[in-house]
Amino acid sequence: MDERTAGRRKAIRKAQREYRWEGVECLPYKEDERALFKAVTRQILFSDPDLAGELRYFEVAPGGFTSLERHEHMHGVLILRGRGKCLVGTEVRAIEPHDLVTVPAWTWHQFRAASDEPLGFLCMVDATRDRPQLPTEAELAELKADAKIAAFLEDGAKSG
Amino acid sequence: MDERTAGRRKAIRKAQREYRWEGVECLPYKEDERALFKAVTRQILFSDPDLAGELRYFEVAPGGFTSLERHEHMHGVLILRGRGKCLVGTEVRAIEPHDLVTVPAWTWHQFRAASDEPLGFLCMVDATRDRPQLPTEAELAELKADAKIAAFLEDGAKSG
Repeated sequence: MDERTAGRRKAIRKAQREYRWEGVECLPYKEDERALFKAVTRQILFSDPDLAGELRYFEVAPGGFTSLERHEHMHGVLILRGRGKCLVGTEVRAIEPHDLVTVPAWTWHQFRAASDEPLGFLCMVDATRDRPQLPTEAELAELKADAKIAAFLEDGAKSG
Repeated sequence: MDERTAGRRKAIRKAQREYRWEGVECLPYKEDERALFKAVTRQILFSDPDLAGELRYFEVAPGGFTSLERHEHMHGVLILRGRGKCLVGTEVRAIEPHDLVTVPAWTWHQFRAASDEPLGFLCMVDATRDRPQLPTEAELAELKADAKIAAFLEDGAKSG
């Protein structure tokens, strides 16, 4: 059991101010520099050799957005704070606290915070999972052929 | 894909009043009649053939409690509303919104709502898991030999 796992094995980790948790590191969103994203942090709430899933908390600062990506693994998302919009496949939807967002396998998705409020969400994934794919220029052009997706990608937060 | 799975595959399921969700059934806590519990409901937020984990929302009415049990599978719990106390192993701790509770394998645990407020929490588990064990009389006596556990089990909510 390494130090991080040991920390996670504490029976109780208290919630702290501003969506931080005792013993939970606030991490950069991605190590992957290819991805385009803005103002996102990541906290790993549950990750353990005895768990098949992981639960993470992501927070997108006002006006920020996660990377536009797809992958084989599925996401189960619960909005915890703030509001914004998300793209899932070809759907653009407003999101607010406690809404559930399902991202099936191989589905393009992105989360955007409103311009005046952070957007925080829990995301459950399989512990063992594939790496995200980013859109090629051709795929991006295809997505943007849909006017509502183009508007979302160009100005999702402000129009929220 | 059956009807329930299809519902869960909707991209967005809106949060509704009072910690209910669009398309999510409010279920009895347990089908198992052996277990002693009081005033608990269960909603399955994410459960899918493509997910190794499940995310459920449990709500314990004021003064209610979940069953005292243990099992091989692990729990990752995030308190969503209200307050109360929990027993994890030999620890009795107060819990409030956004606290994280880790229940390792084979650890006795129970959640109790305060007498004046419901306690609602998310619980992540493996989709494939063993059935809970309830304490034998001897095991219960052993737990109650610890005065703080005895107080928790007899009157956890009121002393909260």
